[in-house]
Amino acid sequence: MDFDFAEIDAIINARSMAIVGASGKPAKFGSYFTGVQLSFGFKGPVYLVNPTETEIMGQQVYPDIKSLPEAPELVYVTIPAHRSMDVLRDCAGTGVKAVIILAAGFKEIGEEGEALEEEALKLARKGGFRIIGPNCFGLYNPRNRLTLLPGYDFSTTPGNIAFISQSGGFSAHVGRMGKSLGIDFSAIVSYGNAADLDESDFIRYFARDPQTEVIAGYLEGAKDGREFFNALKEAASSKDVVLWKVGKSESSQRAVVSHTGSLAGSSQVWEAMMRQCGVIEASGIDELCDVLLALKYLGRKPGRRLLLSGGGGGLGTYAADLAEAEGFEVPPLQEESLVKMQDILNQAGAVASNPLDIGAPLIALPVFGAALKEAGRNASTDILIFDMALNFAFGLGGEEGLNRAAEILIQVKEKSGKPLVMVMYSRAVGADDMLFEEVLRRVQSKLLEGGIPVYPSMPRAIRAISLIN
Amino acid sequence: MDFDFAEIDAIINARSMAIVGASGKPAKFGSYFTGVQLSFGFKGPVYLVNPTETEIMGQQVYPDIKSLPEAPELVYVTIPAHRSMDVLRDCAGTGVKAVIILAAGFKEIGEEGEALEEEALKLARKGGFRIIGPNCFGLYNPRNRLTLLPGYDFSTTPGNIAFISQSGGFSAHVGRMGKSLGIDFSAIVSYGNAADLDESDFIRYFARDPQTEVIAGYLEGAKDGREFFNALKEAASSKDVVLWKVGKSESSQRAVVSHTGSLAGSSQVWEAMMRQCGVIEASGIDELCDVLLALKYLGRKPGRRLLLSGGGGGLGTYAADLAEAEGFEVPPLQEESLVKMQDILNQAGAVASNPLDIGAPLIALPVFGAALKEAGRNASTDILIFDMALNFAFGLGGEEGLNRAAEILIQVKEKSGKPLVMVMYSRAVGADDMLFEEVLRRVQSKLLEGGIPVYPSMPRAIRAISLIN
Repeated sequence: MDFDFAEIDAIINARSMAIVGASGKPAKFGSYFTGVQLSFGFKGPVYLVNPTETEIMGQQVYPDIKSLPEAPELVYVTIPAHRSMDVLRDCAGTGVKAVIILAAGFKEIGEEGEALEEEALKLARKGGFRIIGPNCFGLYNPRNRLTLLPGYDFSTTPGNIAFISQSGGFSAHVGRMGKSLGIDFSAIVSYGNAADLDESDFIRYFARDPQTEVIAGYLEGAKDGREFFNALKEAASSKDVVLWKVGKSESSQRAVVSHTGSLAGSSQVWEAMMRQCGVIEASGIDELCDVLLALKYLGRKPGRRLLLSGGGGGLGTYAADLAEAEGFEVPPLQEESLVKMQDILNQAGAVASNPLDIGAPLIALPVFGAALKEAGRNASTDILIFDMALNFAFGLGGEEGLNRAAEILIQVKEKSGKPLVMVMYSRAVGADDMLFEEVLRRVQSKLLEGGIPVYPSMPRAIRAISLIN
Repeated sequence: MDFDFAEIDAIINARSMAIVGASGKPAKFGSYFTGVQLSFGFKGPVYLVNPTETEIMGQQVYPDIKSLPEAPELVYVTIPAHRSMDVLRDCAGTGVKAVIILAAGFKEIGEEGEALEEEALKLARKGGFRIIGPNCFGLYNPRNRLTLLPGYDFSTTPGNIAFISQSGGFSAHVGRMGKSLGIDFSAIVSYGNAADLDESDFIRYFARDPQTEVIAGYLEGAKDGREFFNALKEAASSKDVVLWKVGKSESSQRAVVSHTGSLAGSSQVWEAMMRQCGVIEASGIDELCDVLLALKYLGRKPGRRLLLSGGGGGLGTYAADLAEAEGFEVPPLQEESLVKMQDILNQAGAVASNPLDIGAPLIALPVFGAALKEAGRNASTDILIFDMALNFAFGLGGEEGLNRAAEILIQVKEKSGKPLVMVMYSRAVGADDMLFEEVLRRVQSKLLEGGIPVYPSMPRAIRAISLIN
C-alpha cells in the first residue's frame, strides 16, 4: 500500500484502544499485558474484551469488539494466532485504524502460518484498517501513554529518538536500557513479522514526524529491499539514523527465518547500503544505546581530538590505547595550557599532559576544579573525557564531594563550550552493598541534567564517540 | 637480586605491620589508608607511626620505627617521597622484611626522582629488606587480611587467582570488579615503579605459590625483557596466565613513562612473547575479569560448539552473530534431541533449533525445565549458554520464579556434566528503582554457588569464552 503519513500518525497517537484477550487470571498472557497497559496510564478509554470474563481489575468487560460503545482506534489482540481472524472480521468497517497482533505462529512457522498471515492481511485490506505484527510487542508512545510489553516502568518523558524493532524482546530491552542511560524516546515500534506495516513504512513515518530527530532500528531483514533503500536514503538525508542489523552468520540467518520469517540478506549488501546512506551501524544493545546517548549530547561529528583525563595513570594509558585504536587523536596540551596545568598540578602523582592525570586518590576539589577548567581551555581539544572510575568517591568526600565534582564538571562544560563526557564504572559488589550504586545513579542524573552524558566504561564511551564521528 | 620464593612469601603473608604516616586527621592520605587497613581486620599487630600525633582511631602511636616494641615484618610508608628515606634508614637491620612505598614522585618524574629511587634501593640492599613500589597501592591478601588502597570492602574469601598490577587504580578496580562477578583472589599486588621487586619476581612467585592457580596482570612495561620472558614461560607452562598490556599507542606510551617510568616496548614483541608462552591476552578491566570468571568455571579450552538458548528470537539471532564472529560453531541440534525438543516446545513463539528459543515472555517452568534438560543432552554441544536477559523475571513469577529457574539450570549443569553459562542483563533504571537489581544479584549468587558463571551481557560472555579456548 502507498505510504500515508496521517494514517500511521493516527495509529501511533491513538486516542482509544481495546485489548482483546484481556484477562484477570494471573497466569494468562492477556492478564499480564492488560496490567501493563492499565498501569502505564493510557490517555483515553481502554476497552477490555473477553467473552468469558465479566470484570477485570475493576473494569467492565465486553464480550467482543462489536459490543463496545465506540470503535477503538487501536485494537491489541493478545489471543493465539488461529483465533485472531474472527477479531479481524469484527473490526472491519468499524473505524478501527489498526490491529496489533501479538501472537506468534504465523509466517515464521512455515506454510500453515503463512496462509494465516495472508488471510489476516486480506481481512485488513477489506476491513479498512492496518496491521502491526503479528509476532510483536506493539507500540510505546510516552505522549498518549501507550506502552509495549513489558513496559510498565518505561519513561513517561517524551524524547526525540524513535526506535523500530523486529524483535519484541529487544524493543523492550532498548526502552529500558535507554531509560537507565538517560535517553528518551518519541516512540518505540515492535513490528515483528511485518505482515502489513513494515520497516520502510515506519522509517518514512519517523523521517517526517516532527517529534523525532533520530531514528534507530533493530533489523533482521527488509521486506522489500528497493523500497527500504529509498526510505532509508530519504530518512538519513534529514535525520540521524542508527541501525543494528543481525543475521550475519549461518546460524543467525537460520534463526532469523524461524523468528520473524525474514530473509537476512547478504551482509555486504546491507553494509554498502548503510554506508551509502550515511547510516551509523551499531551492533548490540549496549552499542546502540551508547550511540543514541552520544548523539543526544554531542550531536553528529563532534571532532576527533580528545583530552583524556582522570585520577590515575593506568586509566589514562588505557584510554589512550582505546582512543588511538579507534582513530582518535590524543594530542599533547598546547604550550599555554601546559604551562598553566603544570602550575596547577604541582604535586606528586599528577601528570600535566594528555592523558591528564590529576592525581589519585585524594585530590582537593579546588585543584580538581582548576585542572579541569584549564583542560576546558586547551585549544587542541574537541571533546573532554573524564574518568571518575576509580577512587574519586573517596577522595572527594562521598556523595557530597561527588556532587560538588559534578557541579564543577558542568561548569567546565558550560564555560568551555566543549562537550564533556563522563565515565563512571559501577562499583557495586553484591545485593548487600547497593549504596554506592544508588549514589552513582543520583550523580549520573545530576550530570545528565547538566548536559554531560555518563558511560559505564571507557571502551563504551570511546566506541560510541567513534561511531558518531 | 636472585629470586627467593621464601622471602616474597614472608612479605605477602606478613604477620605484623607498621603504617608510617598514619594519621587521625580526616583530610590526610595516611588517615584514609590507616582506616582502610584497620577496618579490614589485619591478623596481627598494626603499629601506627607518626611523630606529631599521639592517638589515632583509639590506638597508641609511635614517633618512629625505632620506638616500636618489635620490628614489623611489613612497613607501609604513606608519607611524601623525599621524607621516606629516613624511614628506610630506620628499618635497616631491624628484621623488617619489606617496605611498601606508596608515594609518587620517583623515577616517573625524571632525574631528581630517579636519584631518589636509586637511593631507596641502595638503602634496602644495605638494610636487608625489599621494596614494593614506589608509586603503588601495595598488597591485598585475604588470608592475613592485608588490603591495598582503597580495599576496605574487598572480599575476605581467599581464591586461587593472583593479580599483579603496575597501576594502583586498576589493582583496586579489578579487586572490586572481581568481587562483583564472583571471583576471589589469592593475592593482589600493586607494585608501581618496581624499583626493587618487579613483575618477573611476582610472576615467578605466584608460579610456585600453591594458593594460586591463575596468574593475571596489568602491565605497562617490563624492567628486564629477557628475565620477564623466562618468568612468563615458566609460569605459563604450569598455570593459566592472563595479561593485559597497555601502551600500544603513541599517547599511551607517553603516559606510561610519566605514570611508572616504564618503557612500553613494541606491541609486536609483546604479542609474540605472549603467544609463544601460551598467555591469554585480555584488554580492559571488563575483559580481564570476564576471562578470569570463565577460567574459574569452565577451565581452559572448554570447546567451541555452543548451544545458544534463551527466551526470544532476537537475542538468539544476535548471540549467533557474535559466536560465529568469534569463530565458534553453532551447530544444529542432533536429530534425537531435535525430535524431543520439538515435542517439548510445541507452542507458538518457541523454536526448537540452535539458537534455541524457548518462547517468551511467559513460559511455564516445567516447559523451561524440560527444554533445558534436553538441551543438556544434545550431543553436539560443548557449552550451553542461557540468556535470561529480557522478560523472564516476569514470566517465571518474580524472585521466587527466578530462584526456581536457577535451581533448574544448576540441575541441568550437574546432570549434563557440561558447562552452563548464564547471561543476565542489568535492568535497573535509576536510583529510585533498585529492587530488580538486588533480586538479580541474589539470583547471581545462587547461580555462582551452583557452578554457573553469570555475565552481564552476551558479547562479554562470548568474548570471554573465546579467549580461554
